[in-house]
Amino acid sequence: MAQIAIMGYGTVGAGVYKTLTMNRDVIAKRAGEEIQVKRVLDLRDFPGDEAESKVTHDFADVLSDPEISVVVETMGGLKPAYTFTKQLLEAGKSVCTSNKELVAEHGVELRQTAREHSVNYLFEASCGGGIPIIRVLDTSLTAEEIEEVTGILNGTTNYILTSMADEGKEFDVALKEAQQKGYAELHPEADVEGWDACRKIAILSSLAYGKHIGWRFVPTEGITKVDKGDIEYAKALGCRIKLLATSRRDANGIWALVAPMMIGKENPLTAVDGVMNAIMVKGNAVGTTMYYGSGAGSLPTASAVSGDVIACVKGKDGSIRTEQSTENLALLPVDEVSRPFFVRMRGTEEYAREIFGTITHVVHLPDYKEEFGFLTEMMPEKDFKEKLDAAKGILSWYRRGKKEEEQEA
Amino acid sequence: MAQIAIMGYGTVGAGVYKTLTMNRDVIAKRAGEEIQVKRVLDLRDFPGDEAESKVTHDFADVLSDPEISVVVETMGGLKPAYTFTKQLLEAGKSVCTSNKELVAEHGVELRQTAREHSVNYLFEASCGGGIPIIRVLDTSLTAEEIEEVTGILNGTTNYILTSMADEGKEFDVALKEAQQKGYAELHPEADVEGWDACRKIAILSSLAYGKHIGWRFVPTEGITKVDKGDIEYAKALGCRIKLLATSRRDANGIWALVAPMMIGKENPLTAVDGVMNAIMVKGNAVGTTMYYGSGAGSLPTASAVSGDVIACVKGKDGSIRTEQSTENLALLPVDEVSRPFFVRMRGTEEYAREIFGTITHVVHLPDYKEEFGFLTEMMPEKDFKEKLDAAKGILSWYRRGKKEEEQEA
Repeated sequence: MAQIAIMGYGTVGAGVYKTLTMNRDVIAKRAGEEIQVKRVLDLRDFPGDEAESKVTHDFADVLSDPEISVVVETMGGLKPAYTFTKQLLEAGKSVCTSNKELVAEHGVELRQTAREHSVNYLFEASCGGGIPIIRVLDTSLTAEEIEEVTGILNGTTNYILTSMADEGKEFDVALKEAQQKGYAELHPEADVEGWDACRKIAILSSLAYGKHIGWRFVPTEGITKVDKGDIEYAKALGCRIKLLATSRRDANGIWALVAPMMIGKENPLTAVDGVMNAIMVKGNAVGTTMYYGSGAGSLPTASAVSGDVIACVKGKDGSIRTEQSTENLALLPVDEVSRPFFVRMRGTEEYAREIFGTITHVVHLPDYKEEFGFLTEMMPEKDFKEKLDAAKGILSWYRRGKKEEEQEA
Repeated sequence: MAQIAIMGYGTVGAGVYKTLTMNRDVIAKRAGEEIQVKRVLDLRDFPGDEAESKVTHDFADVLSDPEISVVVETMGGLKPAYTFTKQLLEAGKSVCTSNKELVAEHGVELRQTAREHSVNYLFEASCGGGIPIIRVLDTSLTAEEIEEVTGILNGTTNYILTSMADEGKEFDVALKEAQQKGYAELHPEADVEGWDACRKIAILSSLAYGKHIGWRFVPTEGITKVDKGDIEYAKALGCRIKLLATSRRDANGIWALVAPMMIGKENPLTAVDGVMNAIMVKGNAVGTTMYYGSGAGSLPTASAVSGDVIACVKGKDGSIRTEQSTENLALLPVDEVSRPFFVRMRGTEEYAREIFGTITHVVHLPDYKEEFGFLTEMMPEKDFKEKLDAAKGILSWYRRGKKEEEQEA
C-alpha cells in the first residue's frame, strides 16, 4: 500500500482524490499496489466531504510523515508551492504537479533536486490537461530531432474564440459567458493575455529541444484585441483565428511565439474547438503527429496527475529516468521568421500594394464599409512590421499560418 | 556505448539504421550513451549499403555476441521471428519489434519471458506506426478505466478508401494504384481483408483493458465489398466510409470489431485521410483523447522502434515495468451492440419501412436508379440482421457510427 498526500484541494486536487477512489482497483493493478490518500493539505476545511477526516492545515503533517512517499501538488502559484515542493523532494518524497507556473519557473531546478534525492518531480498535468504530451516527449519521441511543437494550449481562450466564431459574439460578451460557465477565471489575464499558453510552450519546448527555455523570453500576445470583424474576415478566408503557442527549429536555431494566428483547413488544429486542446509535434523521422484531448477540467487534469502518481509508485526505486538540461537556450528573434500576414485596413487596394507589395485574397465585407482585408506574400516579420509602421489606416493584422507545403519547403 | 543488432533489413529495419545514424547525437544524449548497430541479420547481402560490412546471415552472430544488448526485430511473420525472439530474450537481450503478427500471436508469452529474464520486449511500432500509442496506454493513461479504443489502424485501406472518396475510383482501380505507389502489397489480403487492423486492435485492447484478447476472436470485415456507389451514398449523408478497428466496454463486458463503417463530421476520425492513422481512446476520467500520425512508412515506424531501443538502453537494469495479464478476455458478441445501420436496397420506401421500421435520411441518387439508401433507427445488430435476412433487394449495408451524444448516453 502506497500512501500519498494531496496539497491543494481545489478543482484538480479534489479530482485526483475522486480519480484515485473511483478507479482504485485498476490503479492498484497498474501500480502494483493500492494507492491511498493519507493527508489532504489545505487552508480550508471540507465538512461533509469524503476527504474531510484527512484534511490538515499543517504542512509538517505531510513533510514529516515517513509513510507518505508521493505528494500531489495542486495548489498552483509559486508561494508556498515552491518551498513545499523543494522540501518534500529533499525529504525523499516524489512530487506530482499540475502547477505550470512553478514548472515553468523552477522546473529545471526541482527536477535536478529530485534526481539528487533519487525521487521524481513529474508534471504531466502542467501542459495540455489530460493529454499525455509530457511523457510522449520525454519517453516516446526520443529518437527524433524535434522540428516543431505547435499547440492550442489554453482552453479558456479557445472557448472564447470558438464562441466568437460560431455565435458571432464580441470578445467581452464571450469572456463574460466563459466566466459564468466556469471556463474563465474572474481575473482572466493569465489566460487571455497568453501567459498560460506561454508557460506551457516554454515547458514543452524545453523537453522537445533538450535545453531550458525561459518563458519570459517567449514573445507573447493575447486575444484581447481580437474583434468580431477580424473573425469575419478570417471566415471569409476559410480560416479560424486560434491562439497558437509554437516553437520551431530553423536553420539558425529555435524560435518560439504565442499569438493569435489565422489558420486554415490545411492545419488540423483549425478543427480543435471549445475547451479542447491539441498539440502538434513534428520530428525529422516520424513527421507530423498530433495529440488531442481535454486541456483542462477537474477529472482530465486529475487523470494526468494520477498517472504521474502511479508512475512514481511503480518506479519508487528511482527507475524513472527524466533528464532535463539546465543549459539555457537562447531563442532566435521572431522578427526573422517569414510567413504571410493578414492585414485589415482602411484605404485603397492601390495604396496597400504601394506599401506591402503583392497582395492576395482581398476581402471586402458588406458590413465593414471603407475597409478591406488581404494577405501579403511571405516575408520576414521584421520587413512586415516596417511596412506596417509606414502604413496609414491599419485596423488589425494577424500572422497567417503557412500552408503545409510551404512549411515543408 | 550500447551495441545493438537489427534482424530484417527491409523497409523498417533499414529505417531504424538510418534513424539511429542521422539522429545519433540527440539519441546518445537521451539514451545516456551512444547506440551503435553492430550486426544486421538478413538473408540478403547489401553491396554498397552503409550497413554492408555489418551484415551476417548467421543468427548465432547475434545471439552469441555478449556485446549486443538490444535486438531490433523487423523481419515480420511468425517464423523464424518467434524462435529468434524467444532465444534472444532467454539469452538476456531486450527485443524491440514492429512485428504485429508476432505480438498479436505470442506477445503475452514473450513479454512474460522478457520479465523472467529481466529484459524487455517492446512493440511500440506494432500499432499505429510512429504514433506513440502503446506507451500512452502502458504508462500514461494508467489512472483510467478505459471505455473505448477506436482507430484507423491500417494505412493501406485508408489510402484506398480516401482515393475512392476523393477521386471517385472503384476499389480495384484504387487498389492497383496503391500497389503501384507502394502503399499496398502485391498480396494485399492482410490489409484489405482487415486482418492487419484486427491484430492491432487486439494488441491495443489487451493493453487498454488489462486482459489478453486473441485476435482470432475479433469479428473482422474488410473493405473489398465497398463500391463506388456506397461511397456516393455516404457522401450524400455527409459521411465517409472508414475501416474502423474498435473495442468498447459496455455494461456487460467488452466487445471488439473491425469493419468498414459510415462516420460523419461528429467523429474526428472522419478527417483522417490517406495513409495517416489515428486512434481515439476514451477513459472514464480523461474523456476523449486522440493520437494522430503516420501509420506506416520506413522512418515513422523506425522512429517508434528506435524509441523502444532508447528505452531499453536507458532502462537496461530492468527499470521498464510492463505488465500484461496472461488471463484471456472473453469478448461479448457484437450481435448485442446497438447502433443505426445504413442500408442500400432496391424496392420501395414502403417496403423498407415494413421490414426495418422507421427509416430516416432517405437518399435517392440520380446515377443509381431503382434503388435508394437510408438509415435505420438504433437497434441491436442481431435484430438488424434478422430484418436483413428477411428483406429482398438488399445491395449493401454498413454500420453507422453513433453520434457523440448518443455514445455518451
